This record gives sequence, C-alpha cells and structure tokens, in this order.
Amino acid sequence: QGSSVSIYGVADAYFTGIQGGTGRITQLQSSGLSASRLGFRGREDLGDGLYANFVLETGLNMDDGTYGQGAVFGRQSFVGVGSTSLGAITLGRQYTGFWHLTDEFSEFSNSGNGPSSAVIGGFGGYEPVRGSLDSGTGNGGPARINNAVKYESPVWSGFRFGVQGGFGEVVDDAGGNRVLDTYARYAQGPVDLAAAYVDDRGGSITPDAARRSWIVAAAYSFGSLKVRGAYLSVDDRSSLNLDGSGWWVGADYSLGSSLVKIQYVVNKPSYLSNSSTQGIGIGYQYSLSKRTTLYTSVTYFKNDDNAGLGRASFTIPNGLTSTTDNDLTQWVGGMRFSF
Amino acid sequence: QGSSVSIYGVADAYFTGIQGGTGRITQLQSSGLSASRLGFRGREDLGDGLYANFVLETGLNMDDGTYGQGAVFGRQSFVGVGSTSLGAITLGRQYTGFWHLTDEFSEFSNSGNGPSSAVIGGFGGYEPVRGSLDSGTGNGGPARINNAVKYESPVWSGFRFGVQGGFGEVVDDAGGNRVLDTYARYAQGPVDLAAAYVDDRGGSITPDAARRSWIVAAAYSFGSLKVRGAYLSVDDRSSLNLDGSGWWVGADYSLGSSLVKIQYVVNKPSYLSNSSTQGIGIGYQYSLSKRTTLYTSVTYFKNDDNAGLGRASFTIPNGLTSTTDNDLTQWVGGMRFSF
Amino acid sequence: QGSSVSIYGVADAYFTGIQGGTGRITQLQSSGLSASRLGFRGREDLGDGLYANFVLETGLNMDDGTYGQGAVFGRQSFVGVGSTSLGAITLGRQYTGFWHLTDEFSEFSNSGNGPSSAVIGGFGGYEPVRGSLDSGTGNGGPARINNAVKYESPVWSGFRFGVQGGFGEVVDDAGGNRVLDTYARYAQGPVDLAAAYVDDRGGSITPDAARRSWIVAAAYSFGSLKVRGAYLSVDDRSSLNLDGSGWWVGADYSLGSSLVKIQYVVNKPSYLSNSSTQGIGIGYQYSLSKRTTLYTSVTYFKNDDNAGLGRASFTIPNGLTSTTDNDLTQWVGGMRFSF
Repeated sequence: QGSSVSIYGVADAYFTGIQGGTGRITQLQSSGLSASRLGFRGREDLGDGLYANFVLETGLNMDDGTYGQGAVFGRQSFVGVGSTSLGAITLGRQYTGFWHLTDEFSEFSNSGNGPSSAVIGGFGGYEPVRGSLDSGTGNGGPARINNAVKYESPVWSGFRFGVQGGFGEVVDDAGGNRVLDTYARYAQGPVDLAAAYVDDRGGSITPDAARRSWIVAAAYSFGSLKVRGAYLSVDDRSSLNLDGSGWWVGADYSLGSSLVKIQYVVNKPSYLSNSSTQGIGIGYQYSLSKRTTLYTSVTYFKNDDNAGLGRASFTIPNGLTSTTDNDLTQWVGGMRFSF
Repeated sequence: QGSSVSIYGVADAYFTGIQGGTGRITQLQSSGLSASRLGFRGREDLGDGLYANFVLETGLNMDDGTYGQGAVFGRQSFVGVGSTSLGAITLGRQYTGFWHLTDEFSEFSNSGNGPSSAVIGGFGGYEPVRGSLDSGTGNGGPARINNAVKYESPVWSGFRFGVQGGFGEVVDDAGGNRVLDTYARYAQGPVDLAAAYVDDRGGSITPDAARRSWIVAAAYSFGSLKVRGAYLSVDDRSSLNLDGSGWWVGADYSLGSSLVKIQYVVNKPSYLSNSSTQGIGIGYQYSLSKRTTLYTSVTYFKNDDNAGLGRASFTIPNGLTSTTDNDLTQWVGGMRFSF
Repeated sequence: QGSSVSIYGVADAYFTGIQGGTGRITQLQSSGLSASRLGFRGREDLGDGLYANFVLETGLNMDDGTYGQGAVFGRQSFVGVGSTSLGAITLGRQYTGFWHLTDEFSEFSNSGNGPSSAVIGGFGGYEPVRGSLDSGTGNGGPARINNAVKYESPVWSGFRFGVQGGFGEVVDDAGGNRVLDTYARYAQGPVDLAAAYVDDRGGSITPDAARRSWIVAAAYSFGSLKVRGAYLSVDDRSSLNLDGSGWWVGADYSLGSSLVKIQYVVNKPSYLSNSSTQGIGIGYQYSLSKRTTLYTSVTYFKNDDNAGLGRASFTIPNGLTSTTDNDLTQWVGGMRFSF
C-alpha cells in the first residue's frame, strides 16, 4: 500500500442563456466543454508488458456540488489486467464504445449544451447518448454498463476493437436485463473511422425489453482543419417501439491557442411525424494554457411542431416554447480547468 | 493531466454533554473547533499574475461517516480565473461573505456547539449563519449559493470586497429564486472591520420570498489579546415576516501553545415577545502542533420562555427543556487534526 | 495544511455463478478477496512517541460505482491521538473488534462469497459479522459503531486489547441505543489467539433491545501452513429472541506466489429446528505482484429445510432454491488490486 494513486479531473462551468418563443432563462451549469469529474487511478507494471490498473471516477455537477450518474463513482469504476500485446480485460462499471464515439466524434462532445451529439440523445426516453433514466440503477445502460466485463484489443496498425458484456444478474435468464456492447475503430494518419453497437435487454424501467442501437462515425484532418460526423439509429424492440435516427457533421479549425468550430445536428424520431429537431451552432475556444480553456458558443435549435423538446438540450425548462414557436437560441460562455 | 491537485482538510470530533431543566444527553459529534472537511484543489500559474484554480470540498460528519450540506461537495465546488492585480472570478457553489464573517469574527466560529455565532443562526427557519433547510437544494442559500458567479477584488492597502450572484434558473424571472451577496472588509495592522449583505429570493421552501440579511463585524488585536464581535439582522419580507437580530462579543488570549477564549451571544426574534436566547461560554485550547489541537469549553444558555430552543445549538434534542426551565449547560471536549 | 495525506485502497471485482436446486445466476460483484475501498489517512508525529492521526474510508461497490455501508465514509471515519507506550484514543465511526476477528481469522474473510465468516453473519436479521440493516443509521452497530470512542493498547509482549463505546445519544438514557465493544488478542511467533464481545443496545430498528455477541478465535502457523478458526454466539435479548451460534475452521498453504485455502463454516440458529447452513469451499489465489492477485474458489452450501437462505451468502437471489432442494454451489473468479 502506498503512493501509486494519481488524482485527475476536470472542473468546467459555464453561463448559459436560452431564449425561446415565449420566454428566456439564464443559468450557471456544469460541464460545458468537457464533463466535470474527479478521478482516482492507479497502474502497476507487472513486467513483460503486463500491467494491472483501476479507475474510480466521479461525475461532478460544479454548480451545486452534487455527483451525477446516480452513483458516487458513476462515471467509471473498474479494475483490470492488460498486456501491451494481448489487450486488456476490465471488470466493473464502464462506458460503452457507443458513448465514446458520440463524445469523440462530435465537435461539441455529448455535453448538455449547444449542437452536441446529446441533441440526438435518443428517441422517447431511451437515450443511448446521454444515458437513460435508469443509468444509475438496473443494468446502468446504455451509456454506462454495470456489472460489466470488457475486453479491449491493443492497436494493430491503427486498428483496435472492444467487446463488453454487462451481466443481467437475473435468475435463470442469461439474457434478461443484460447489455452487450462492441466497437471497432481504425485511426491512422489523418483518418479516423469507427462503428459501435449496443444490444440492451432492459434496465430497471423495462426489463427484458430489447433495444438495439448502432452508430458509424468518421473524422478526417486536413492539417489544422478537421471534419467529423456520425450517423446513429435506435431500434426499440420493446412494446413502445420508439425508433429513430439522427446524424451530425461538424468541423473545427485551430490557429495557435484558438479553435473555431461549427456543427449541425439532426434528431428524427420515426414513430411520430413532423417531430425532428435540428441544431446548428458555432463555437470558439481559447486555451490560456494546456490546462485552462475559455469557451463560448451560440446555437439555434429548430424544433418541428411535434418535436420532443428535450431533444434541444439535456433539459429545456418548461415555458420556453409555445404551440406556435418551438425554436430556441442558446448562448454559452464558460471555462474548463483540467487537472 | 497529472499531479497538480492537493488534498487538504480537517478531522475534528468531540464529546459533548448537555444538561437541561429536565434531562441530560451525552454525544460524540463532529466539527467542534472547525468544520470537518476533505478538499481537493488545484491552481495553475498562467503568467503575468494570472492564474486558474478550482476547489472541491466535502463537509464531513466524522461521527457517522456521512457528508453534510446535502451534496457530496456541498461546502464548496467552483472553478475560476484570477489576476493578482484585477481580482478573481469563480463559478459554482460558493460561500457567502455573510457566512465567512460569522465564521471568522466569532471566537467559537459558526460551529454547532458552545456560544458560537450559530446560536444566532436565524429566526424561525431562515438561517443565514447555519444555512437553511434548503441549503442542499434550491438556490443553496443563504450560507452557500448554488449556480453562483463571484468576483473578489485583490487587497488594496488592506481593503477588499466581493460580489456574488446565484442564478435563480427560473424562466422569465430574473429575480425569482436568485441570491445576491456582497461584502467589504478592511484589515490592516491590529484592525479588522467587515460588513456583508445577502438578498435571498427564495430557495426551494418559499421561492420568490425576499429575505435580506446584513452583518457588521469588527476585531482588534492588543498583542496576544484579541477582541471581536458582530451584529446581524434579518428582514424576512416573505408573508411569514420572521424578522430578528442578534449580536455577539468575544475575546481570546494566547500564551505559547495555549489559547483561552470567552464569548457572549444574543439571539432576539422580533416577531415574538420574550423569546431571546443568550449564551455565555469559556473555552480553552492547546495546540500539540501546528496541525493538532485539543479543546474544551463550557457554555450556559439562558432561553426565555418563548425562545426557539433550536437557537441554543444546531440541534437540541427533545426532552432537555421543560415549560418551567429552558436553560441549558453544555460542556465540550475534543480534538482537531488539520491536514 | 499541505501534503500529509496518503490515499490507499483496494479495487476487487469477481465473476460468480451460483447454482441451486431450481436455478442458476451469473453475476459480476465487488469485493471477492478483500473489501473494495478508497481511503484517505494522515499521521503527524508529535515527538516523544506521541502522534495524531485520522482515517476516512469509503466502501466501494466496483460493479456499479456506488458506495456501501450507507455513508460515503461508511467503513471508517475517525480522528485520534496515540502514544507508542500508552496506546491510542480515536473518535468517530469505527470497526468493532468483533468484526476484525471475523475478517482476520477467516480464510475467506467476511466477504460476500464462498465459505466466508459472513455465512454465519447472524441469526434472523441481527448480523454481527456483516453489519445489520441499520449499519448506516442509528448506532451503526454491530460491525461498525457510530459516535464511538475507542481505546487501543500498545502491544505488550504480543498482547493487546481494545475497548470502544458508541454513545446512544438518547436523552436521559445512558444505555439506550449505545454499543459497547471490547477485544483482547495475543499474537506471538506462530500463535494468534483472540476474543471479542459486543453489547448492542438497539440501533434504529429496535432501540433499547439488548443483544450480546461474543467470539473466540485462534490461528497457528506451521511454516507455510496456517490453520485458523473461530466460534461465535449471539444472545438476542430483545423480544424476538433470535439466538444462534456458529463456527468455522480453515487452513491455507502458500508456495511462492500461490496460496491454496480451504474452509468449513456452520451457522446454527437456536430458535428454529432444522435450520443450519453449512458451507465448505476451496480456493486458490495467485499473486502477480505484491499489489495484484488473481483468485478463484468453489463452495458447496448445504441448507437445512428451515435454513435462512440469506446465510449462504450476503444475498442469495430469489428462485435459486426450492422446497425440496436448498443446496447451492458457487464458483468465483476475480482479481484484486491494492493501492
């Protein structure tokens, strides 16, 4: 026992104003550029490329001091062994490959503001990007998986993949409540290509429902200019049948300490007509150092008459929209400190 | 990412016995001399006197291992940037200037025992010193403020000030549920003078109520002898109209590792006759080192017939007082370890 | 304030399958070999053999990221002073000596799997080994005690003892709800002998009930072979009268990085006939390093017709047993990382 632990994290807070057809609101929120977090991790070299490691990571709401994800180490909590040549096996609560792609291939990550990939989120309560209501309970899925075993390969000439299974822990039902998750990714030079798939049998809300989500994502770098985008689809095989699809495309350009970015996002539920949400936003961020970044953005959300307005952001307060005007404009200004 | 985080805190626990007109109780409690806490903080120098920093601080109940203030980082949770010449801006959950004065100008701080400034606390549920029932929810006020932006000036020849606003996060109502907080302080040589003001529009219990609290405080050092005191007043502009005022005066004398202190406290609700609480106490503390201090105190509380007995301490258990004798005597003995 | 804090802990997760008369279940669980935990501790040397210290320790459920024991620092939370010649006094939430013996004299510790001492647990809801339902509230007892003052002696020629009292914090009732705990232990050369006693007046569920538990334990080392065992008894003096007794005996043999262990456990409630649980298991563990250990085990549980099946492990899911076959087989495979 001793000093092998390191502490890391992100403290990120921002002002935001949202103006809708009939109202406006001003807030101070957490996690504008990256998710605020406090983590503890350790790694031991065992020789011959073998190692053991663990991660415990708290999701932080900087605005009120609470933790997120319904568990004190609700972002990640796992222990594992790995080999530089054979890959790694980890046990615990872990992110899905699906979630990672929505984070890493989106100009605005999957955070709760702007034209982020969380605008897609999901389709009627089932949220493969944001994590569903039952993320903190049940099987944890689909963004994070409880009781999970994950295998991740090493990188072979830019290619790697991962497979993860979360036990349902239901008597005599190997499938009930469990989650399967897999991804593959190829990143070499300017190219980054990825796909992921989640098969989620339940969670606390509708155990034994079978919902399948998949995503394909791509990014390409032209020097300082990067373009990226993704398409995702949810097949809700529960009796609710809340299917849908969505996509986004974005670009960013970096010059010295500055970065300009733009992204367009579409969410399209297929079980309800005239219900799409579109978002287009532009952002600017300035790094005072490697650790400290200031950022701002403006986004315009266009919601069709029947659009689930929750699509426009993680939580749109009641009263911002009306029967005649559901469109929203959001501005954001904040700072991120990484440690 | 790496090693820029430092861990700090206080582990403080004490025995206490309280004897009332009709009963007695013995307890082991947390936070006798200072509030028990565990904190994580980091600071990065950005050059030219500019810096970025963050604080995450848990309030600890050492006696049962739980956290206080209704949130895992319920004491403080913020991120900010500052300049040695222009001052600092911080975003998150933060203490009010009002709370700091009740802590720093009181011989017994604003802790839950003895003749502390928490004896004043508040007047009928609204508690600017201790923090109200809705501290962990709503706007967090009035001791700590959620969703808050704070500006603090640098020190100019001993003078400094701070202004803080906590967003109400209510649609179309810039004022509803929000908190404003401001303080000014002058400390030079033996003199320390301060004033603070909190305008609190709500919280979860009575949103849109407008309660205004102010405090003036002073301290003076005659070599090893210090005297200090304060006067505070609450104007409850909600329909309950639970106004009141209070004051305290104390002194301490240090000799080597020893410190003796005495304080007199008065709480006077103005909406109810014959309802004052008075407390007078004497304390002794001995520092085994810079980090480790032993302490003891005895306090006598005189409660008028209609006194809200909660005034006598954070929580006076039922059964310690009677209709004919509301007075209480409390002894305390404990230790504090700072890390 | 500064850098006197060290972080330590255990990240331990395992697969387990349980097969009963009528069903089976597969799970990923936390704390197979040792209890997963994250701790913060500090110690200051005060000179002349005197020191001050504190411990804050979170119990971790690695499988879902939550904390255990009903409190964020629910394993341990205390501050104290000690002397190498006079012993130590600590204040806060602390383990009982009883709990330590069930952990340290059991081949499978008191964890939630295999033929661990937790199989004995208790007799009808009162659980001196595992900790009762009210561990997180009330007096915290009997495994951990809230509001507790503990004295532990130094080691005199292998002998040491400890006494601990948890205040009931009930008005006018020095005995109500409080816990008393004491142990004595002699460890010299190959011999390790110990006894402990807990007198528990209540907790939140049945305050003022008086339950008394005692345990005797012994271990002996023949070189690389160790044998150990214990006998415990609960006298439930509440109106429920849920008395019982249990014992276990085990042995382990270490060879290089390998350790083989075997243990037999019996739980026998005395208020109900034909209600015993027996468990016999064999385990193997292999240390990849001082910090990292892989482990596996198989256990067979024989439950009498009226056996409280909760005895067979911390939580046996419904549906694994039937009226005709209550026996269970459990296999376990996992890893532990100590930091």
